[in-house]
Amino acid sequence: MKPEKVNLKDKFELFNEHWTPKIIGELNGQQVKLAKLKGEFVWHDHKEEDEMFLVIKGSLKIEFRDKTIRLNEGEMYIVPRGVEHNPVAEEEAWILLFEPASTKHTGEVKDKLSVENQEWI
Amino acid sequence: MKPEKVNLKDKFELFNEHWTPKIIGELNGQQVKLAKLKGEFVWHDHKEEDEMFLVIKGSLKIEFRDKTIRLNEGEMYIVPRGVEHNPVAEEEAWILLFEPASTKHTGEVKDKLSVENQEWI
Repeated sequence: MKPEKVNLKDKFELFNEHWTPKIIGELNGQQVKLAKLKGEFVWHDHKEEDEMFLVIKGSLKIEFRDKTIRLNEGEMYIVPRGVEHNPVAEEEAWILLFEPASTKHTGEVKDKLSVENQEWI
Repeated sequence: MKPEKVNLKDKFELFNEHWTPKIIGELNGQQVKLAKLKGEFVWHDHKEEDEMFLVIKGSLKIEFRDKTIRLNEGEMYIVPRGVEHNPVAEEEAWILLFEPASTKHTGEVKDKLSVENQEWI
């Protein structure tokens, strides 16, 4: 793919669905994705993949089995591989994700929110 | 390393040097770094590593041999491996970098700006 400049806000304007990560870049086998979140996702983990969340707008809770953290705009968290987590956004949150190209957003869990083939925007 | 929430702005407050990337996270063999840039860097490439720049504050030019791009706040660009580039910031710019843990910021070029062991903050 020909490299091009990416304006995050412009990319966020291109979609409105929740919980459907859109790919905006790829490097070193990793992908950069944007997602809009609202409501509760689904408990899952990624066995072999660490996953980074960076909040671009709004606020996000990530529930773990032993704690809950809250991320506000400009805050990030790396969920280590194998750690079960469940993102929850009371209001719509815009996030940037960084994870291996192979990562499925619901891990091995099959859910109505699962998206098999994530889309480039 | 125990995962912890990272507030980008708080981390940027911890240092003032220019052109010295600080590591704030690691995942899947990749590192997330913050840097403050001002002035002109040094022409270099990374033979095996793609490098992503995301501007958090200010504005950054990246010169290539055949073009120059400008990145403003909220804009990102992935410099493909092997492509010579030279970042230039007329005013101080704050950036977030994603790149393999092995990446040296001046590539194989030795320069007075080269930092051998990048520091975690």
